Amino acid sequence: MTATPHAYIEEHAERILNELIEFVRLPSVSTDPTYHDGVEQAAHWVAAQFEMLGLSDVRLMATSGHPAVYAEWLNAPGKPTILVYGHYDVQPPDPLDKWLNAPFTPEIRDGRLYGRGVSDDKGPLFIAIKAAEAYLRTVGQLPVNIKFLIEGEEEIGSPGVAALVRDNPEQFAADFVLSADGAMWRIDEPSITISSRGMSGVNFTLFGPSKDLHSGRHGGAVMNPLHAMAQLIASLHDADGRVAVAGFYDDVVDVSADDRAAIQNLPFDDDAYMQQVGVDELFGEATYTTLERQWIRPTLELNGMGGGYQGPGSKSVIPAEAHAKITCRLVPNQDPADIRAKVIKHLETHLPPGTRIEFEPGFHGVAPYQVTPGHIGLIVAEQALKAVYEQPPLMVRMGGTLPLATYFKQYLGIDTIFFSFSTADEDFHAPNEFFRINRLYEGIAAWIHYWDLLASSE
Amino acid sequence: MTATPHAYIEEHAERILNELIEFVRLPSVSTDPTYHDGVEQAAHWVAAQFEMLGLSDVRLMATSGHPAVYAEWLNAPGKPTILVYGHYDVQPPDPLDKWLNAPFTPEIRDGRLYGRGVSDDKGPLFIAIKAAEAYLRTVGQLPVNIKFLIEGEEEIGSPGVAALVRDNPEQFAADFVLSADGAMWRIDEPSITISSRGMSGVNFTLFGPSKDLHSGRHGGAVMNPLHAMAQLIASLHDADGRVAVAGFYDDVVDVSADDRAAIQNLPFDDDAYMQQVGVDELFGEATYTTLERQWIRPTLELNGMGGGYQGPGSKSVIPAEAHAKITCRLVPNQDPADIRAKVIKHLETHLPPGTRIEFEPGFHGVAPYQVTPGHIGLIVAEQALKAVYEQPPLMVRMGGTLPLATYFKQYLGIDTIFFSFSTADEDFHAPNEFFRINRLYEGIAAWIHYWDLLASSE
Repeated sequence: MTATPHAYIEEHAERILNELIEFVRLPSVSTDPTYHDGVEQAAHWVAAQFEMLGLSDVRLMATSGHPAVYAEWLNAPGKPTILVYGHYDVQPPDPLDKWLNAPFTPEIRDGRLYGRGVSDDKGPLFIAIKAAEAYLRTVGQLPVNIKFLIEGEEEIGSPGVAALVRDNPEQFAADFVLSADGAMWRIDEPSITISSRGMSGVNFTLFGPSKDLHSGRHGGAVMNPLHAMAQLIASLHDADGRVAVAGFYDDVVDVSADDRAAIQNLPFDDDAYMQQVGVDELFGEATYTTLERQWIRPTLELNGMGGGYQGPGSKSVIPAEAHAKITCRLVPNQDPADIRAKVIKHLETHLPPGTRIEFEPGFHGVAPYQVTPGHIGLIVAEQALKAVYEQPPLMVRMGGTLPLATYFKQYLGIDTIFFSFSTADEDFHAPNEFFRINRLYEGIAAWIHYWDLLASSE
Repeated sequence: MTATPHAYIEEHAERILNELIEFVRLPSVSTDPTYHDGVEQAAHWVAAQFEMLGLSDVRLMATSGHPAVYAEWLNAPGKPTILVYGHYDVQPPDPLDKWLNAPFTPEIRDGRLYGRGVSDDKGPLFIAIKAAEAYLRTVGQLPVNIKFLIEGEEEIGSPGVAALVRDNPEQFAADFVLSADGAMWRIDEPSITISSRGMSGVNFTLFGPSKDLHSGRHGGAVMNPLHAMAQLIASLHDADGRVAVAGFYDDVVDVSADDRAAIQNLPFDDDAYMQQVGVDELFGEATYTTLERQWIRPTLELNGMGGGYQGPGSKSVIPAEAHAKITCRLVPNQDPADIRAKVIKHLETHLPPGTRIEFEPGFHGVAPYQVTPGHIGLIVAEQALKAVYEQPPLMVRMGGTLPLATYFKQYLGIDTIFFSFSTADEDFHAPNEFFRINRLYEGIAAWIHYWDLLASSE
């Protein structure tokens, strides 16, 4: 038996990488029923890893959709219990023709492993499993109690696992969640994400004439739903990029001067960012920096809008209807249902003459999330990253939404600490997703440190 | 041989209707290259009709796009020569799911023939062909000299046939044009159209980030091209429905008080119109009536607009681009190129921050058209309609555009008389386009009268 968990990882480095490649080969696309078998295989693959480690209560938990994989090791009495979260499902691989290798035939190039799902979230969750293996194959036990919850519906909003957690609070009870999902913001600075924005939204249709009209014959006499849509959408923001919906900012808790200073002190270069996203100038709410606009300010964004003839050439039509899809990103203490109601009210109030509006029902909102300041899980994360990278990690935030953190808070009353070793630039949700191989080993080392430090921090 | 042209039509009524159905089956959509074969078939079908009648010089005349079909009968020395105009091309059939029958599988319901292009312009041009057939199969000759020009690019602005007419003025020389295209404004009052609006326009794309961005991560920090599009489109009109483009109304010739009075004396009911088009209120330029807004005032209308995700559900995206298609309808003496330049200038001037704009080149504008008052072709049209409907026709105008009338005036120096038997309510350019079957026979009767009256009016 090798002496330490860290030494074990060094010794087994090649085999561990090959196992990850095997995992990435399984096409576990949760959004598309044609990948049903791939999703099943990935769930069983994760369960088999847990079985191999000799964990207890290993099982696939059925949901309304794809199963979640559960396992536990609870033999450290008096020590904290953490719920390790990750997801084995992946995004669809389209557009296939943009990939340099087939998305489910992983390939190593320049120290990176390319394949769908390798960064989001197979690589990161695999790190947690291998950290457990390193302990169990050397020390023979874990320093803290661990429950694993690896779900298969993250890419479709985690509906099934949310219900599981809600309905089985005792099974998932823990001191906090340690999430393998979440992505560090940059490759050159280790970081910990301490908040994510919530989400609300509304999809709607504007109706004008009861049928498409000839724009020559009728033009000038009736309201064109496309003109009305433009007016209505333009009314949602003022010229400075601030959301013009009445009451939109009412519940926003202003971020403290210290926290704003912390964000402003982070290394961030607007010019480099403009180059990254391909714009010549930035635009957003006045008096806030780019990072503040992305992290601590709420937004209202159109994700889609359209109507009339959108094919090649021209068509002389005043369309009967126009469509729009809006999502808002929320910050504490905005409430998704309240924001949706306010946006709907704005749209109804500003409805142009000669039009009618209908809202699509059933948008699933997500509350914003923020780790409790000073949380032990956060302090340990900081120490573990310092141990691996020899520099203190940055405290960063996330513009996107992590629904599970909200559900864990709501149903289990516990915080979620993001401790992922993927990086925001790794093209998850895009062709040629990759994961840096050195991060695989750094991640396992950091997770080993994490559990050690947590066990001795009590 | 049957005694008179009118009797011939009665005798062959059913066969004639079946021929029209056969014609409508040919999917001759000129704007969409996937319908290339349908366009070819329709051109050959028209030529075959002319061959069958024994007309001279029957041929397909190549253009830069779809061919025009030409034929002539010039054996009435001393009598006027008229150039009969129509078009065999049709609008795209989208949205397909709104049709009760497949658009190119015509169906008769309640005395109406439903199918794409049946009213615009296959039914009306077929009337002219059958009037010629009725003469040639009974009298054995036509009372006047006739040249047929049936083109295949009316729905894309007649670019090819315009060049044909420009380059072959002697071949198309005539006393005036009798157009089978143009549509009567109502089913219950016969009418003659004395003016049509011109057209200009521009299609463009707004560009934001160089690729689609995640709206959670990036939302709030960059200009969303959909927000920019809404702002830009909203800036094109003021709150009263007046076009806000600088200089847009500069060249508009005010219609005389007499002509405005004539329009206001026409039987027109706003409530009935609202019911017809399915709106609860009208909207347009202040201080003008509905008919004035449609006939003697210029417009700027969006025909299509869109960007981002428009499928089912939601997708968290800030799109890289957004598109729009604009057409303007023009009145004397607005110039299409001048108006296009002014609209482009407005769009450039009002371009929101963080975006870039590109204009699609090559929009073919059309000048507005007005028949010379007191024209012999107009007088004969009045008499022919009175012969069929036993009431004097109304003098009306057209909100739409007939590019050929402009070209005929410009290149041949002759007027165009509109003598069509489609009706404005027949949903051309919309799903469930139809043509009233009784109008098919009334139309043929009226064309027979027209040629008779014209021959004896000298």
